[in-house]
Amino acid sequence: MADWNPALYRRYEDQRTRPAHELLARVPLISPARVVDLGCGPGNSTELLRQRFPDAELLGVDNSEAMLASARKRLPQVAFVHGDIAAWVPARPPDLIYANAALQWVPAHETLVPRLFDLLAPGGVLAIQMPDNQQEPTHRLMRELAGEPAWREYLADAARARAELLGAAGYYDLLARQAASVDLWHTTYHHVMDSAHAIVEWVQGTGLRPFVDPLPPALAASYLAEYGARIAAAYPPRADGRRLLAYPRLFIVACKSK
Amino acid sequence: MADWNPALYRRYEDQRTRPAHELLARVPLISPARVVDLGCGPGNSTELLRQRFPDAELLGVDNSEAMLASARKRLPQVAFVHGDIAAWVPARPPDLIYANAALQWVPAHETLVPRLFDLLAPGGVLAIQMPDNQQEPTHRLMRELAGEPAWREYLADAARARAELLGAAGYYDLLARQAASVDLWHTTYHHVMDSAHAIVEWVQGTGLRPFVDPLPPALAASYLAEYGARIAAAYPPRADGRRLLAYPRLFIVACKSK
Repeated sequence: MADWNPALYRRYEDQRTRPAHELLARVPLISPARVVDLGCGPGNSTELLRQRFPDAELLGVDNSEAMLASARKRLPQVAFVHGDIAAWVPARPPDLIYANAALQWVPAHETLVPRLFDLLAPGGVLAIQMPDNQQEPTHRLMRELAGEPAWREYLADAARARAELLGAAGYYDLLARQAASVDLWHTTYHHVMDSAHAIVEWVQGTGLRPFVDPLPPALAASYLAEYGARIAAAYPPRADGRRLLAYPRLFIVACKSK
Repeated sequence: MADWNPALYRRYEDQRTRPAHELLARVPLISPARVVDLGCGPGNSTELLRQRFPDAELLGVDNSEAMLASARKRLPQVAFVHGDIAAWVPARPPDLIYANAALQWVPAHETLVPRLFDLLAPGGVLAIQMPDNQQEPTHRLMRELAGEPAWREYLADAARARAELLGAAGYYDLLARQAASVDLWHTTYHHVMDSAHAIVEWVQGTGLRPFVDPLPPALAASYLAEYGARIAAAYPPRADGRRLLAYPRLFIVACKSK
């Protein structure tokens, strides 16, 4: 998979940053000493953490050098390091592990989530937000096309890039016995999009990448054209001609006992 | 339907007030002159509006005298008046009409919602939050029991107390052409409940009332006993013995052009 395009990702940043805000708003910490932004991307969520906890020792972790470069430019005073979340171990136990729109790219949540929780200092908080849109038309249609003759030769593994989510109750069961509290909610944002093309552009920055990046240029073009046509049909124009993009996300805030 | 029990309603007030906070957080007004809390109940949402807009002329409207008495006690400096939302007309156009957990009791949203939006002053905001839990086990089981021989004689109309919601796209279509912007989202809170009984107690304060209030005492008791048993089965204990109550709510914030 090619590296991320920070400019394309940032085009929808306002709407993308809203879940990061809402996740952070539910973190019941006052002045954590050590805060980690796991899967920090271009540093938009790291900036929120900096504003909320200006005195914390803040660390951003990502596995994309392009994203890290973008984040370092944005926040020169913050430490950003390259790392894979699945294997990541902090030097000292953090008071907050914040993973916004990151863990959906990491497999085996049954072991990953309890492991991250165990890494916390006493009284620490694990805060997670993940897109839960694999059953939405945007993502169903990516997979549908990947199974069709024109493209399937290149896309056998494309759908595997994303981890299987466990559902709210599944995460609760993983955390409830260890945690002092588990706050779980699920929000579907209905984003108002100017056109079907704007919907395609949105997912091109993230979920569509594993489906387009492996294709030779001509096949990438035909895949995108057919995907665009199916998106236009799946998201019909509303009363004002715009389209509503339903985007479900799962939120988890688990607090460790002191 | 008997009047509301403010004490029972308030027992779960922290969790109930969270949606009111989240709705208000998305209202993009700085200093509205006139604010109306439509279906103000015991004044918990009115108090949030007071804190956010201390200089506004604030009015609470409800059709329950018990709730109004409770609200007046809580906020003696605010005007609270008796009124039915379906027919309510303000003396002067409000800058904010805020209806938190209220419109689900008012029929005919196709006409109600555009009418409320029309009542706003230029640049005004209509902010709505409604439980969208009619398909959840809590509410499905209420209706299921109401259709059974032991109780159906008394409960033919019970399910009609709640309005039919239109879905996010339905509300968007009603508002998009008139509004400068429409912000729509849908959140399912997964409330951690100590027992099945706590789930019954929660809905007894609100959704269960039209099903229990019409019954003679002995039938109310048998209805509640059977309802409790079915709730216990529908919400099994999680890993820590507690139960998760999924509670979906729809949010709408529509802004009028200036």
